[in-house]
Amino acid sequence: MTKKITIAIDAMGGENAPTKNVQGLKIFLDKNKNSKDFIINLYGKENLLREALKNNKLFNENINIIHTDSVVSDEETPLTAIKNSKNTSMWNAVKSQVDGNADITLSAGNTGVLFVISKMILKMMKDVSKPALAGLWPSKKGMCVVLDLGANIECDEKNLIDFAEMGAALYKSIFPEDMPKVSLLNIGSEEIKGTEVLKKTFLNLKDLKDKNFTFNGYIEGNNIMDGDSNVIVTDGFTGNIALKTAEGTAKFVIDNLKKTFSDSILAKISLLFSYFSLKKFKSKLDARKYNGAIFLGLNGPVVKSHGGTDALGFYYSIDLCYRIIKGDLMSQIHNNLDHLNEQK
Amino acid sequence: MTKKITIAIDAMGGENAPTKNVQGLKIFLDKNKNSKDFIINLYGKENLLREALKNNKLFNENINIIHTDSVVSDEETPLTAIKNSKNTSMWNAVKSQVDGNADITLSAGNTGVLFVISKMILKMMKDVSKPALAGLWPSKKGMCVVLDLGANIECDEKNLIDFAEMGAALYKSIFPEDMPKVSLLNIGSEEIKGTEVLKKTFLNLKDLKDKNFTFNGYIEGNNIMDGDSNVIVTDGFTGNIALKTAEGTAKFVIDNLKKTFSDSILAKISLLFSYFSLKKFKSKLDARKYNGAIFLGLNGPVVKSHGGTDALGFYYSIDLCYRIIKGDLMSQIHNNLDHLNEQK
Repeated sequence: MTKKITIAIDAMGGENAPTKNVQGLKIFLDKNKNSKDFIINLYGKENLLREALKNNKLFNENINIIHTDSVVSDEETPLTAIKNSKNTSMWNAVKSQVDGNADITLSAGNTGVLFVISKMILKMMKDVSKPALAGLWPSKKGMCVVLDLGANIECDEKNLIDFAEMGAALYKSIFPEDMPKVSLLNIGSEEIKGTEVLKKTFLNLKDLKDKNFTFNGYIEGNNIMDGDSNVIVTDGFTGNIALKTAEGTAKFVIDNLKKTFSDSILAKISLLFSYFSLKKFKSKLDARKYNGAIFLGLNGPVVKSHGGTDALGFYYSIDLCYRIIKGDLMSQIHNNLDHLNEQK
Repeated sequence: MTKKITIAIDAMGGENAPTKNVQGLKIFLDKNKNSKDFIINLYGKENLLREALKNNKLFNENINIIHTDSVVSDEETPLTAIKNSKNTSMWNAVKSQVDGNADITLSAGNTGVLFVISKMILKMMKDVSKPALAGLWPSKKGMCVVLDLGANIECDEKNLIDFAEMGAALYKSIFPEDMPKVSLLNIGSEEIKGTEVLKKTFLNLKDLKDKNFTFNGYIEGNNIMDGDSNVIVTDGFTGNIALKTAEGTAKFVIDNLKKTFSDSILAKISLLFSYFSLKKFKSKLDARKYNGAIFLGLNGPVVKSHGGTDALGFYYSIDLCYRIIKGDLMSQIHNNLDHLNEQK
């Protein structure tokens, strides 16, 4: 028997925890009825978790509850986190990886605190200069990986090359059949465009001729979602601005669409006729499908779910954890970084 | 009689020039039938322009043709522009401002070349550290100004403060009744977030208590289109990434909507019923309404239309020129910069 995939879930993080988290788990278990290759460890208040499991009729031998008294508060800042977060559900869920009791940790709690304590507990990988926060974006051809989304405000070429390697490894763990195509986010596609750091990274990646991915050169913001690149590399400042601008734009367009369909009686009637089309449209662009940002570069993967997501959104982040461990994320990262080191 | 507003148009720039440019002018003249307060100077090949005017039945005493033999080619780069662009329609249209023959210049030609020759001919304003490219973005409450969109890859706090002053002046020239609200684009709203340059700019703008605008602090990418800020200030790298990511996202969402409505027979039928609603939706988000980026910080305003836009898009950029000169853009900028200097 192969080793089971163990996912440590901070069941107390995010809005409506632990109800939402357990409801998300129920969706995951329903969708994976025939799989026996995983264990779910829920970290949090035992009585609340028992009740939530009971309410959802979850009596599964693959679910364990690990009691923790305290919970990271939303008011906690990264500065006070280390002092105040010890032995919380989040802390213990991350810590369980070090103890060999989990392959991956998932939390919908405070992002800054999760980042700080993950870095402290799991520590950075030997060959990585900076860890990165990677996210999944919808694209014409499915989805792509974008990193860094905000872990590092300033990055040098060494950081960006590491991000390329780790992003390619992440993509490969989700889509094992594909050879990842990596691009650098820039304000033009010509070699002379962009900052000095980007130009140096471009030349390095071009010279590298990495066997683990194809380097596609620069990509502009308007082409991120075309699907021609699978991994988009950028610094955390730019990545965060791009991510949030995309979120805001999608919301703006969809709000306008909604408003148009409620402007008049005729519009409301037409809405009835378009019900199924619009439902399909909504489902296609459902942000919950892309819920889950991955901290890369630590000695163990940590996934951050949106705090405000619902049960379905939380399900997608559990599913993401399951898929990237099944796709052997950590070996992929080691493999890519080793290959990079050999080139030096 | 007050002085007429004179707009110098490079009629040979952009796709389908000069046909598109003259058709755009026709829309402008139709919409401003009762105004006699403007003169349009068209720069380009006289025979082509005469023909285009004739085809559009434009026999207006307020239109002049100024013949130029040559045209800036699309292949020209900013590096070769100064040598090769002298006495082109673009060059002469910009130059006419220095000769006192125009208040503003409009071109749909090569952006890089327009930027370089505008800077060379008009020269930078005495008190401005770097010029900026400003654009109009749709927002929930109308539109906002975003700058810099790509003129300067790296900016210091002095540049960003100038952008705030010039952006506020631009907004005021378009919406004279409003007190502009200015925000700095950042990856969080807390004072401690962001780069050192942003933190310094934040403190400076906060201390300034400028009478020409209200400083609203930081804004994140997802809030740009909320309409709570009128002027969004950022460096040209970030601004360009944000602009293009927004364009790409809007396109992605709308393409998905189109696809949904053509997926099945039922969907196609529902499209018929939604025809008017979708038409209204399309019109609301029509990018042509926001066509026209403004170079700020030179001794005269230059507007760049998208090269690929159509007659309606070009009309909107002519209208923008008309409105910002009517709103006395250059005096507004001088006023704001003078006020800034007094504070030092």
